[in-house]
Amino acid sequence: MLSRIRIVLVNTSHPGNIGAVARAMKNMCLHDLVLVDPLRYPEEADVAFSRASGAHDLLSSSRKVETLAEAVEDCHLVIGTSARQRTVRWPVVDPRECASLASERAAADQQVAILFGRERSGLTNDELALCHYLVQIPTNPEYSSLNVAMAVQVIAYELMMASLAEQGPTAEQRDMITAGQFEGFVRHLEETMGVIGFTDERSSDKLVRRLRRLFLRAEMDPDEMNILRGIFKASQEHRVRTPRNPGND
Amino acid sequence: MLSRIRIVLVNTSHPGNIGAVARAMKNMCLHDLVLVDPLRYPEEADVAFSRASGAHDLLSSSRKVETLAEAVEDCHLVIGTSARQRTVRWPVVDPRECASLASERAAADQQVAILFGRERSGLTNDELALCHYLVQIPTNPEYSSLNVAMAVQVIAYELMMASLAEQGPTAEQRDMITAGQFEGFVRHLEETMGVIGFTDERSSDKLVRRLRRLFLRAEMDPDEMNILRGIFKASQEHRVRTPRNPGND
Repeated sequence: MLSRIRIVLVNTSHPGNIGAVARAMKNMCLHDLVLVDPLRYPEEADVAFSRASGAHDLLSSSRKVETLAEAVEDCHLVIGTSARQRTVRWPVVDPRECASLASERAAADQQVAILFGRERSGLTNDELALCHYLVQIPTNPEYSSLNVAMAVQVIAYELMMASLAEQGPTAEQRDMITAGQFEGFVRHLEETMGVIGFTDERSSDKLVRRLRRLFLRAEMDPDEMNILRGIFKASQEHRVRTPRNPGND
Repeated sequence: MLSRIRIVLVNTSHPGNIGAVARAMKNMCLHDLVLVDPLRYPEEADVAFSRASGAHDLLSSSRKVETLAEAVEDCHLVIGTSARQRTVRWPVVDPRECASLASERAAADQQVAILFGRERSGLTNDELALCHYLVQIPTNPEYSSLNVAMAVQVIAYELMMASLAEQGPTAEQRDMITAGQFEGFVRHLEETMGVIGFTDERSSDKLVRRLRRLFLRAEMDPDEMNILRGIFKASQEHRVRTPRNPGND
């Protein structure tokens, strides 16, 4: 089950943290680590390996990619960690709920990613826009800046607890679209809104973010996505298929 | 409640770990740190303070004592962490049960201590003999050596979760549409699919059922619903607002 859960570190600044994450992951039976555009790594890999202690194998098998989109493209469920209360209303879970969600999906053979942002600034709004859920680790309101490896440790611990608690067959699982398919869906929606005259370029960004959240929450299966894309297509072609005589207006 | 829970580090070798423990504690609203005969501390206090990040206050207020007995003298409940399965049959709890025990006692105004042993060898049998319970953090059987600060982080996180659970649910509530609004939304969607030529009467029933499920799952708020209804409206009016000259087709 834990093999279907990926830890994704975005723009990590300190190679030592990457090593500490590898160790925390291995301690909790996680194995899949993806590094999105890390700073000073692999240049300062020795620092990372020294902190990884006995988890050198895990660190060696980690993958480095350029963009977050690449890291999550094959994922059915994407959860982003966030220290801050966002003004935007996102579905927020605590680490225990996060582990429960992730385990259910992984048990149904879906691919799950949990994202951890930059040491100082976390994940950007654009990166959060890729997430189905945010997970917030409860912290001291007066001192909430958890070290990134500590945050991974807490989440990984809850995943381990969930995997130990797991028993018996889970409820019927729906077939889910991947993050890559979701992006195609959103592009189609955006294009449609433009073609039907609902948006122009200036007004659409915030709106699109909002609609992303709505449809991420819906957790579409491929059939549902295709129905909606069929509707988008019909909306766009509507004009072409039924030309009107200007004289009738 | 958390103010009655003390973290006790026994014979810690690396001052950096002491600093990381201070940070992990402060993040989780713990404040009482006692160091039993630490090595190279306070001699190498700079290393500890550097790792403590914003938790210098906590580290400064930590107490150093010579023996474990002194550290736990005033405690009503003492719990020792242990990575290993001991041959001796001890009452063993997991971190969640540990937090539950500790919270109950602290809420009853009792003093609680949780002990963390040496980086390499943990707590001795004599030290364990001071404990009411052992707490074991579940780990990978093939790689179970958790860093001491990581172990503190996991236990402190569970204490924080237990303390929040005592305060009752704080989950933010989203504003949700009513069932009546949902029906209006579905009628608008159905109508739109008809107008744009996506469905005719015969084919729409099953499809509509499917789309209902999808949008029920999304648990829309009123704003989101209104955005989608705006899109439906634009789809329907698209034809009217942009009449084409048949001669152009």
